[in-house]
Amino acid sequence: MPWIHSFGAGRTPAEDAGKAILGGKGAGLASMSRMGLPVPPGFTLTTEACGYFFDNGQRWPDGLEHDLVEAVRSLEEATGKRFGDSQHPLLVSVRSGAAISMPGMMDTVLNLGLNDTTVQALARAAGERFAWDSYRRFVQMFGDIVLGVHFTRMSRAADAFLGDRKIENLDAEGLKGLTDVLKRVVAEVGREFPQDPMEQLKAAVDAVFSSYNSHRARYYRKSHGIPDAAGTAVNVQSMVFGNMEGASGTGVCFTRNPKTGATGLFGEWLPNAQGEDVVAGIRTPFPVHGTTPDTLEHTHPALYAKLCGLANDLETHYRDMQDIEFTIEQGELFILQTRTGKRSAQAAVQIVVDLVHEGVITRDDALKRIEPSSLEMVMRPVISPDAKKKVIAKGLDAAPGAATGAVVFESADCQEYFDRDEPTILVRLETSPEDIQGMTVAAGVLTARGGQTSHAAVVARGMGKPCVVGCTDIQVDYSRELFYAGDSVIRKGDWITIDGATGEVMEGKVEMLSPESDSGAMAELLSWADDVARLDVRANADTGPDAARARELGAVGIGLCRTEHMFFQPESLKAIRRMILADDPKARQRALNEILPIQRGMFAEIFRAMDGLPVTIRLLDPPLHEFLPGHDEDLGETARALGVRVEALKVRLTQLAESNPMLGHRGVRVGLTSPEVYRTQVRAIFEAACELTQEGVVVLPEVMIPLVALAGELERMRALVVETAEAVIGEYGTGPEYLVGTMIELPRAALTAGDVAKHADFFSFGTNDLTQMTYGMSRDDMGKFFPDYQRAGLMPHSPLAVFDTEGVGQLVQMGTERGRATKAHLKVGVCGEHGGDPNGVRFFHANGLNYVSCSPYRVPVARLAAAVAQIENPRG
Amino acid sequence: MPWIHSFGAGRTPAEDAGKAILGGKGAGLASMSRMGLPVPPGFTLTTEACGYFFDNGQRWPDGLEHDLVEAVRSLEEATGKRFGDSQHPLLVSVRSGAAISMPGMMDTVLNLGLNDTTVQALARAAGERFAWDSYRRFVQMFGDIVLGVHFTRMSRAADAFLGDRKIENLDAEGLKGLTDVLKRVVAEVGREFPQDPMEQLKAAVDAVFSSYNSHRARYYRKSHGIPDAAGTAVNVQSMVFGNMEGASGTGVCFTRNPKTGATGLFGEWLPNAQGEDVVAGIRTPFPVHGTTPDTLEHTHPALYAKLCGLANDLETHYRDMQDIEFTIEQGELFILQTRTGKRSAQAAVQIVVDLVHEGVITRDDALKRIEPSSLEMVMRPVISPDAKKKVIAKGLDAAPGAATGAVVFESADCQEYFDRDEPTILVRLETSPEDIQGMTVAAGVLTARGGQTSHAAVVARGMGKPCVVGCTDIQVDYSRELFYAGDSVIRKGDWITIDGATGEVMEGKVEMLSPESDSGAMAELLSWADDVARLDVRANADTGPDAARARELGAVGIGLCRTEHMFFQPESLKAIRRMILADDPKARQRALNEILPIQRGMFAEIFRAMDGLPVTIRLLDPPLHEFLPGHDEDLGETARALGVRVEALKVRLTQLAESNPMLGHRGVRVGLTSPEVYRTQVRAIFEAACELTQEGVVVLPEVMIPLVALAGELERMRALVVETAEAVIGEYGTGPEYLVGTMIELPRAALTAGDVAKHADFFSFGTNDLTQMTYGMSRDDMGKFFPDYQRAGLMPHSPLAVFDTEGVGQLVQMGTERGRATKAHLKVGVCGEHGGDPNGVRFFHANGLNYVSCSPYRVPVARLAAAVAQIENPRG
Repeated sequence: MPWIHSFGAGRTPAEDAGKAILGGKGAGLASMSRMGLPVPPGFTLTTEACGYFFDNGQRWPDGLEHDLVEAVRSLEEATGKRFGDSQHPLLVSVRSGAAISMPGMMDTVLNLGLNDTTVQALARAAGERFAWDSYRRFVQMFGDIVLGVHFTRMSRAADAFLGDRKIENLDAEGLKGLTDVLKRVVAEVGREFPQDPMEQLKAAVDAVFSSYNSHRARYYRKSHGIPDAAGTAVNVQSMVFGNMEGASGTGVCFTRNPKTGATGLFGEWLPNAQGEDVVAGIRTPFPVHGTTPDTLEHTHPALYAKLCGLANDLETHYRDMQDIEFTIEQGELFILQTRTGKRSAQAAVQIVVDLVHEGVITRDDALKRIEPSSLEMVMRPVISPDAKKKVIAKGLDAAPGAATGAVVFESADCQEYFDRDEPTILVRLETSPEDIQGMTVAAGVLTARGGQTSHAAVVARGMGKPCVVGCTDIQVDYSRELFYAGDSVIRKGDWITIDGATGEVMEGKVEMLSPESDSGAMAELLSWADDVARLDVRANADTGPDAARARELGAVGIGLCRTEHMFFQPESLKAIRRMILADDPKARQRALNEILPIQRGMFAEIFRAMDGLPVTIRLLDPPLHEFLPGHDEDLGETARALGVRVEALKVRLTQLAESNPMLGHRGVRVGLTSPEVYRTQVRAIFEAACELTQEGVVVLPEVMIPLVALAGELERMRALVVETAEAVIGEYGTGPEYLVGTMIELPRAALTAGDVAKHADFFSFGTNDLTQMTYGMSRDDMGKFFPDYQRAGLMPHSPLAVFDTEGVGQLVQMGTERGRATKAHLKVGVCGEHGGDPNGVRFFHANGLNYVSCSPYRVPVARLAAAVAQIENPRG
Repeated sequence: MPWIHSFGAGRTPAEDAGKAILGGKGAGLASMSRMGLPVPPGFTLTTEACGYFFDNGQRWPDGLEHDLVEAVRSLEEATGKRFGDSQHPLLVSVRSGAAISMPGMMDTVLNLGLNDTTVQALARAAGERFAWDSYRRFVQMFGDIVLGVHFTRMSRAADAFLGDRKIENLDAEGLKGLTDVLKRVVAEVGREFPQDPMEQLKAAVDAVFSSYNSHRARYYRKSHGIPDAAGTAVNVQSMVFGNMEGASGTGVCFTRNPKTGATGLFGEWLPNAQGEDVVAGIRTPFPVHGTTPDTLEHTHPALYAKLCGLANDLETHYRDMQDIEFTIEQGELFILQTRTGKRSAQAAVQIVVDLVHEGVITRDDALKRIEPSSLEMVMRPVISPDAKKKVIAKGLDAAPGAATGAVVFESADCQEYFDRDEPTILVRLETSPEDIQGMTVAAGVLTARGGQTSHAAVVARGMGKPCVVGCTDIQVDYSRELFYAGDSVIRKGDWITIDGATGEVMEGKVEMLSPESDSGAMAELLSWADDVARLDVRANADTGPDAARARELGAVGIGLCRTEHMFFQPESLKAIRRMILADDPKARQRALNEILPIQRGMFAEIFRAMDGLPVTIRLLDPPLHEFLPGHDEDLGETARALGVRVEALKVRLTQLAESNPMLGHRGVRVGLTSPEVYRTQVRAIFEAACELTQEGVVVLPEVMIPLVALAGELERMRALVVETAEAVIGEYGTGPEYLVGTMIELPRAALTAGDVAKHADFFSFGTNDLTQMTYGMSRDDMGKFFPDYQRAGLMPHSPLAVFDTEGVGQLVQMGTERGRATKAHLKVGVCGEHGGDPNGVRFFHANGLNYVSCSPYRVPVARLAAAVAQIENPRG
């Protein structure tokens, strides 16, 4: 086996020696070279050579020195340059490259080959100052890395020479003087700085070999769990200079537009410059493409055409958009590096769809390549990257998208501003169901408390509304209608901007980018997803407009319509409060009768929007006290509005107060103790359904009972639903087909699912509550310890955001299996937040569920995740 | 097959025809007769005769009439009396008796055989008035039941005859007149009242047959799920009279003392009286046994001896203490009925132990016969049955036993009264951990809110303290220091009495019975239980005295020592509050250092009491805010006491407030976010353990981490415990063997028990929280809907009181199996309330757990239940 493999300039062997032999970087160079890319030529000393070196008392294997001389000779031929030549000197870089990358473990030696003679040639081609500065750097680096001269010793000598001057201000003469100083230091403490490039090279190879077993490198491998393999390869590559005279330059380009995905080269270049000039930002680079005077296309059309051809080859080879670094040295184009290019969410979609059309990848490839969660970003406004912004606080990134508007502290104010066409940001300590109306018309929501799954976060995500929560940097003072954030005082009516994707809160209006109009690529991608997926995707929606939006986004049904939101309509709220405060059943029924037509109207809107698709309606879930005023509200006013005494209101508030409302009197427990509430809801559902059925709308209601712990609860509530539904259908003479089912959201329901299924046409896992019960953690209180847990690595994600397949998953699996053991064709879905979590979707697919339901804006995410799940783990 | 079976006077066939043929009552009479008991002789018409009657148009089968005549003749011979005889008339009772008893479906006809002639004979033997009153009743009953004369018709005629008089004031002549009136009514509306006893009998048999298919009886069978079997038997039995001249009388006796279990007849009798005289209470009966003038033993020693002999025979036959009704008619002793006697909990224990010693039953029989829960009552004071009491309110029977004392509303007052040796009843809306000190010194506890598993109920049961909770009949006004109950106003200092076994609240001091001193029977029974049981019983105890009491009651370890109670010591409370309010770690550690010696001292007390037995110590479980003052406390005062500003206190209170504290920042979550708290506790435990080890006490600490949801939590806390423990042991040079384990009280811990077990030496199921999480129900809030659930039959018992084997049980089983799959010898116990619930104990035994732990006062219950579980379902 050869100790050295050459690459570039057509000298690369056809067969791949592999990473184990060539190291990662060497294999990459061999591969690019083999593809015919014009990489600067060079050669790689194998890891085996390094292995021999360590196994044999740091001696080179027989023949290595000979091979090295041959490799240099071959390189000289390929480049037309020669080591030490006074006209065309060969300069090379020397880099280590182990099989597994260990970034930062060994510095790169650049411009090896420079000496007192060759520096003159470089000066002629690229300028005096550049040449002497390059030589100065090389001597310093060679002294440090190869000859082992202590860096501080060289620094001290350099400082003495410089006096008050700075290196960047030295002219060529000054740099020459400094180089001499450094050479003297090297000579004093170690070997004389070698003028012979071949001697330089051998010494550099020795240094790279040795660096593999340095204390630092061994520690790195140990701490990263990298095995102590044979050793490192050494890559020797000819230097190319974009700052030489003639047609020279350097640039970076993407093979497609990384923001939009549009085809065609997209990048920048600087003529007569090295890479560091682009990075330094002193000169403004020009576009690669275009007809303006300084583009590469305009100034060097042939080179541009060559670059386009190479870009095309690279995409074909790597089957993806590439991010390319290139340099032109005196009319010759070199590719220094290519890698898969980073891109915006929108571009990612466009690119994979185009690649399918171009025949480069399959549809399955396209689906697998898109991170499902990224789709959520595709249609949201974002802060412009160039925008000037003053960030005054930072909270949690609860719901993506940016929003700007006037600060208000009360939901009622949102409406008032909205009526005047002024956007608002609703700022609250935390939100409650009473804020929903305000949130609906606000542009964005900011809360000082709460976590990723607080009320504000969940509702905002459901609405597709930008939201920042848990922003502990701000102090809200409701009474004075202002908040403090650092030095800033933001008063009601002042404008702020929030970025729900980063959690940033900014003063004033900050410039935003609207989402580019839909190219149709996402729709196409999702249609492919739907063809593949076995798991239906429904949406959680509580209103007609939400339902319509969900349908537009591809939902094939409503999996969760939360009826409590209907009670928070101002007219309903008053009636429900009267109902709760009523002393006798008649007054209670009177109040419910007021709510009935409001709910009927709202159900009708939803049914109409979902004509032909199923709508799962959850009967009232929260405890009744949620509808009464909170501690900070004016009880007197509420009491007056309801026509009751303040004392009576207080007594009822005390009676209804709960130690742990989440584990309290809610859901089916309200349905059982106050059946009139559920009866009214069911009547409203079926009156709406029957009316629309008569109009020819196809209504498919699925009535869902929440919080069932005992099969008997469902048995009784099923009877109530069926009795009421049949009565209404009887009154209308005709009505819809309907189902009655339950949420499985308590561990006990999952454990006893075999019994529960006897009374259910469907199960819908309420994974929010199921997760909270299984962990014994409340989403509203988790914020107190979750950050510590996350820091400690105990919980990388909140189990409310990323489904816990290990624990909660067992209950979903058990519930599904046991339910279907009782009823083989039981319809089973999920309607918690996890319906839109790709991790959850994968699990629900694998466990044979029929559907997931999520916020409308996550429907595309779920559709894609469902397709990927099927591709990775096909089910019949 | 014969239609009629005779019994009594030696005429009973040796083989048992069985209940299906003779009915329940007939089979019982045959059985007593076969035993040689002197039952009044008679005969039984079989259910088959009745069946024939219905199958054949209400006709009697051929031969039945003949057999009836024969049976009467045989009965006449056996008794020496004859139907219609003017000197010695045969009088009989006629009763129905189906295979399955249907009480109240058919009235009894007594004194059949009376007519205008025989009444004279009865008058001579038992008095004129008695005879005519008996005849009057017979006519009335016969008219009503047999001849179908409407009862109101007879009442109206009787009223007309009586005018202003009352029946009980009529003399014999008057009763004779009334009898004539009734006979006339009967004759007017139906058949003439038959004077021929044989005719009376045949008509009565017809009526009894028919009654079996009455609407009332059919409805009864349907609603009680009793199959419509062949029919009813009819029992005809000769009447005996304890009020005849000569040695006559009647009585009731137990074969042993039903209050104490002491051997020897225990009962009362009345000479010259019928059963109803005893019931009416007009004459005071005399004891059966004893040397005072009127005892049966003294007045009729031979009869007494015979009764003693019979009692002995009955116990031998039925292998249990009997409750016997007897009548003596002119020197002849008859047993009318015998049944297993009801007894006090204490007597039950004494009796089974004595029966074992007498060789009547086995030890296993004895263990199985005692309802384990009843043992809890054995050592509690009770309200005297004769006490005069005014019940002013009724709540839930939370912890058995009665208590009397002065009403106080603040825990601090309990202590003040206690210091003056005055007992108190602590009355609160509900209790919180801050009330523990007060509860400790109170005689009893009464709360207006909360259920069977509220804080007050659980703590009181743990302390063995009488307690009534959820007493919604009372309105507590803290500010005026009084409560209302109906018309009563009870002020601070007024005395009340509560009965924790009934839930009654009584005004003033009510007379109580102290528990009789322990006979040693319970100790003996429990020692047999311990020999049998495979499940160890430990106790939950938080203090040295509690631990000592638990050990006395037979606990073989402490399964749960709740350390939070230690923090509520006044000195500790101040320090922990300072700790919570501290801004910097140093101040926090300073506060903890103050707590350390207090806790060390308390641990030492417990370890000393449990020398040689294991003590499981749970590190801090409740959220920190439980240690801060509540909303109703004076924050200013607390702030002053702690040396902080009121505002700072308020801010901290707001920061720590939780929506659902049960699902909040508590247990291991505090241990992870504030490790100094757990570290201090572990240090206190091991300093105490090491000190006592040096003294030669055998300390076996088991450190338990609460509320684990993730294996990683336990892994980290185990490291903390071991590090601290080893450091302390290192300081002392010697120390105890110890274990580190966890509570399994969240569904997720049970589901992932295989992983959790990697870091645990033991598991202890915290079935209180596990049940609450699995059901999604909080014990403090369940009261709002549980009564409705109970009424609806959805939950016969709270799952917090009676273990839910169906749902929560799955998690216990799963957790145990998976834990042991990881560690075969993992020690597994239970430390929730269910450790003392016999239903739970049976389940835990069956699932191979090692131990249960319960309140000290329930230790005997659990020991017995564990033995019964092993007898019923032996495990190796």
